Amino acid sequence: MKLDKLVGERFKEKPSDCIIESHALMVRGGYIKDVAKGIYSQYMPLKRICRKIENIIREEMDAIDGQEVLFPVALPAALWDESGRYTSVGSELLRFSDRNGSKMLLGMTHEEAAVHLVRDYAKSYNNYPFMIYQIQTKFRDEARPRAGLIRVREFTMKDAYSFHTSQEDLERYYQICYDAYNRIFARAGIPEVITVASDSGMMGGSLAHEYMLLTPVGEDTIAICGNESCDYRANMEAADSIIENIKETADEPLTKVHTPDIHTIEEICEFLRSPLEKSCKAVVYQKNNTDEYVVVFVRGDLDINETKLTNYLGEAVHPAVITADCGLNAGYIGPVDLEVAGGCTVIYDVSLKGSNNLSCGANEEEYHYTGLCMERDVPDAEYVDVSKIIEGGICPKCGKKHITISRGIEVGNIFQLGTKYTKSMNMQYLDADGESHYPIMGCYGIGVGRLAASVCEAHHDEYGPVWPISIAPWQVHLCCLRADDAEAKACADKLYDELQREHIEVIYDDRNVRPGVMFSDADLLGVPVRLVISPRNMKESVAELSSRDKSVQEKVSLDQVVPAIKELIHKMKKEVEASISK
Amino acid sequence: MKLDKLVGERFKEKPSDCIIESHALMVRGGYIKDVAKGIYSQYMPLKRICRKIENIIREEMDAIDGQEVLFPVALPAALWDESGRYTSVGSELLRFSDRNGSKMLLGMTHEEAAVHLVRDYAKSYNNYPFMIYQIQTKFRDEARPRAGLIRVREFTMKDAYSFHTSQEDLERYYQICYDAYNRIFARAGIPEVITVASDSGMMGGSLAHEYMLLTPVGEDTIAICGNESCDYRANMEAADSIIENIKETADEPLTKVHTPDIHTIEEICEFLRSPLEKSCKAVVYQKNNTDEYVVVFVRGDLDINETKLTNYLGEAVHPAVITADCGLNAGYIGPVDLEVAGGCTVIYDVSLKGSNNLSCGANEEEYHYTGLCMERDVPDAEYVDVSKIIEGGICPKCGKKHITISRGIEVGNIFQLGTKYTKSMNMQYLDADGESHYPIMGCYGIGVGRLAASVCEAHHDEYGPVWPISIAPWQVHLCCLRADDAEAKACADKLYDELQREHIEVIYDDRNVRPGVMFSDADLLGVPVRLVISPRNMKESVAELSSRDKSVQEKVSLDQVVPAIKELIHKMKKEVEASISK
Repeated sequence: MKLDKLVGERFKEKPSDCIIESHALMVRGGYIKDVAKGIYSQYMPLKRICRKIENIIREEMDAIDGQEVLFPVALPAALWDESGRYTSVGSELLRFSDRNGSKMLLGMTHEEAAVHLVRDYAKSYNNYPFMIYQIQTKFRDEARPRAGLIRVREFTMKDAYSFHTSQEDLERYYQICYDAYNRIFARAGIPEVITVASDSGMMGGSLAHEYMLLTPVGEDTIAICGNESCDYRANMEAADSIIENIKETADEPLTKVHTPDIHTIEEICEFLRSPLEKSCKAVVYQKNNTDEYVVVFVRGDLDINETKLTNYLGEAVHPAVITADCGLNAGYIGPVDLEVAGGCTVIYDVSLKGSNNLSCGANEEEYHYTGLCMERDVPDAEYVDVSKIIEGGICPKCGKKHITISRGIEVGNIFQLGTKYTKSMNMQYLDADGESHYPIMGCYGIGVGRLAASVCEAHHDEYGPVWPISIAPWQVHLCCLRADDAEAKACADKLYDELQREHIEVIYDDRNVRPGVMFSDADLLGVPVRLVISPRNMKESVAELSSRDKSVQEKVSLDQVVPAIKELIHKMKKEVEASISK
Repeated sequence: MKLDKLVGERFKEKPSDCIIESHALMVRGGYIKDVAKGIYSQYMPLKRICRKIENIIREEMDAIDGQEVLFPVALPAALWDESGRYTSVGSELLRFSDRNGSKMLLGMTHEEAAVHLVRDYAKSYNNYPFMIYQIQTKFRDEARPRAGLIRVREFTMKDAYSFHTSQEDLERYYQICYDAYNRIFARAGIPEVITVASDSGMMGGSLAHEYMLLTPVGEDTIAICGNESCDYRANMEAADSIIENIKETADEPLTKVHTPDIHTIEEICEFLRSPLEKSCKAVVYQKNNTDEYVVVFVRGDLDINETKLTNYLGEAVHPAVITADCGLNAGYIGPVDLEVAGGCTVIYDVSLKGSNNLSCGANEEEYHYTGLCMERDVPDAEYVDVSKIIEGGICPKCGKKHITISRGIEVGNIFQLGTKYTKSMNMQYLDADGESHYPIMGCYGIGVGRLAASVCEAHHDEYGPVWPISIAPWQVHLCCLRADDAEAKACADKLYDELQREHIEVIYDDRNVRPGVMFSDADLLGVPVRLVISPRNMKESVAELSSRDKSVQEKVSLDQVVPAIKELIHKMKKEVEASISK
């Protein structure tokens, strides 16, 4: 490929709407063009990167007996009605009607389509286990698409679905897939990806893991145990919050205090000169379906984990709009004598269990209590874990106060789904004794574009991406400085031909432009091996061979260029391979 | 791959809703499963076939300097508003709104997206020419999806767009693409595909060709000149209809005849004992936008070509609903004194030009005319070509009456688009003198699934498809008859391993089933090379090697099996290659 005809613009200025580097570099380097909010076209360099990633994924899926299939992008609503998700999933599911008024949707995940494809076939235990996967366009109508390819509305995803006749067999295969995923990320150039326990969310099921690339720009929050002998890692959404409250020996009496102009828990604690931990905070939500109020009491220094709250309630909630006549005194809500017109759900977080001498709202305008003792004053309270784990908190696994909070990009996920879909969609098989059972499913996803962006996030410098050889758009970037010099041009042309004959992927820049332009374009394309031909070097019969990451920078005799490049590529490939076993 | 875990059902009975063989075989062979009307999931065998077809297409597009890119499936309506197609295309364009109420659509073709991707980049004549293409899911909300993968609503398509600075350069590249397409179809196994001139339809532009696989089950109709020295071939929609009328020497007088109970042109001709050619038939349409009537007069034995009619009118029409008060006397409409309340468009087909002594309606209930002389009785008529070419008709190229009418499946198309999209979307470049111009476009499409179905249509027997080696789901089908025979099983297992080590794609059937089941499954999978291991052959230390098309059927010594298979595959590949140059 000659660079002078490569479609796409490359430029220096960082676009103002790009908050993360991979997004800025992909815009600046002519990788993507936005078509609508969260919807991009891909130029050739990114398409090539994505195709290589897809091939890595395909090889690893095939190696664990995956069967590549294809599900439709546009699905009938009737299929999602079977699982109940047509109504249960929110507005991120894009619903529409076809020309005949039939209700349809754009697939954002394909559990229903997978069950539909196999339920008539897999009726005997003999058919099991098996795994099917596809690499296909998906659409998720995100409220806030952001960060370039990290959170988009339309994306290419590999989604796989396995079917088993026992939980043991699912767990066996889950581990195989777990390992295959680690190989995929290593082969794509980010072996540093870690796994964390995750919440299974709208997918249903029990055990789930996410693969996280740790980076401050990630939108996921991860709790990691810093204790060297402990391997606890979990998505914040799934991390148990363990709180040790030291109960004070003497219970103080419950005392009403006049607190005009005080509306927040911080203000009352400051007013009383007591720490936040010695307060009971109310956070109010409303159920999405019924608008019923949900009042959550939690220790004043902690926040609510809305995922845990939603899972506990079994339905979605949103921050409450508190009306004048609902009975809730905003700013003064407390657990004693709480009354709400029309009733409400009251939840106590475990962080309050056994605590005493707390301050809290008195459910009366301008009044708070001090001396709240949970056991004495709220004897019927049942406690559930709905708070967020905190930095320095207790590790749910080793029990030590070693939790650190990091941010990461989720590059993949695996779920043990159980029978949620096979049951609701009535997929059954007969066992050896002729008895009917629902097969047990696992599902396994990787977003291709997000993975490309994550590799860019992990491997770039201020000038551009540093693509690993395994997914780079080309292997070699050949620059001819001074293409108007006949001798240099002839030499570069010859090497271009030779490299192509050797099936090496070359992008060739023979434009008559300044070296600065040439090199900044090369940096933006991030091709791992660079070869520069120039009149000055021609005099010495050498070429400059370097790697994009600058670890290699050497002059090579012209007649040794092709073998030297082949060796360098080979070395780079070996390095990627070596990272797999780590 | 072992057959016993291959997901998908295979069965003998032809499904009642399958009207063509490729559809029936793909359902019977476990290739496709219908999810909604015209929307299918693909099982592994078809997905593998399609991936091979995609790779052939990709290689040929890359070889003519195509740059693979990716456009979104979901596009903003605003983009199609720029070209005017958001409103001009009918309900086959699926329109919907996203969660924010923004109007969107599912891409059925990507001219707008292509211009959007390159218009900011290609601002200098230096950037030209270039071609971009994608292989991507498309959606076309067909009113009548039919014939399995031949006419679906969701499909994978390769669509390419080239950009040029002159008509000459477009024509140069058009020819290159024309040849590449011929190579693609030959490599996919159907070198017999022919090109026909086509109508450019809603795409706009001037010259266009379709690639047709001739088959009686095709839904396109093609006019082919049977004159050996003539190469005229055109889609019926685009074929000029040339009619020679022999004018009778003496004009008869226009005479009103009482014709009770006669409503069709056939009936009046029978009543008058005159041939259909001596009549003037009225066919009535209404304009889609305004419901205005369009009355088309044509020679009684001919039919209207609605594509030509639409092109002439510049807008879409539908068969008319004739109301009591509109002034049209259904069954008695004629060109003399025709009056319609609210006016109507009247069109005279060239087949009537200079004709005389015709019968026609008298625009009066129960009356017809005889003796209609066009020049005398309809002196102001202007004639246009809106009729269908007929079997035995005059060839528009050589002028001989050698036209034959065939049916075919359109497997690809190429268009010279001109500046329709660059002008409407204001894409301009500066030439060497600094003057602005609109680039000239070409576009080039191939439907992947339809191509797979067409190959099946062209190559099958009553037992299943006969896939060419180039796109077959696997290269070798290994059958172990009597897998319960330890010696046979061990031998087959060993060959399975050996063939895989040689990177030969094998599907291995070691199920304990009857040979009949095994062979009918193998026939349905249509793998080109078959190897059968059986206890009986083991005694002679041989295996049965055959080809799916039965041209090869031989016994091969067990120690020669692998080389013999490699040679057979090589021979099959050579045959495909040889067909390219034809």
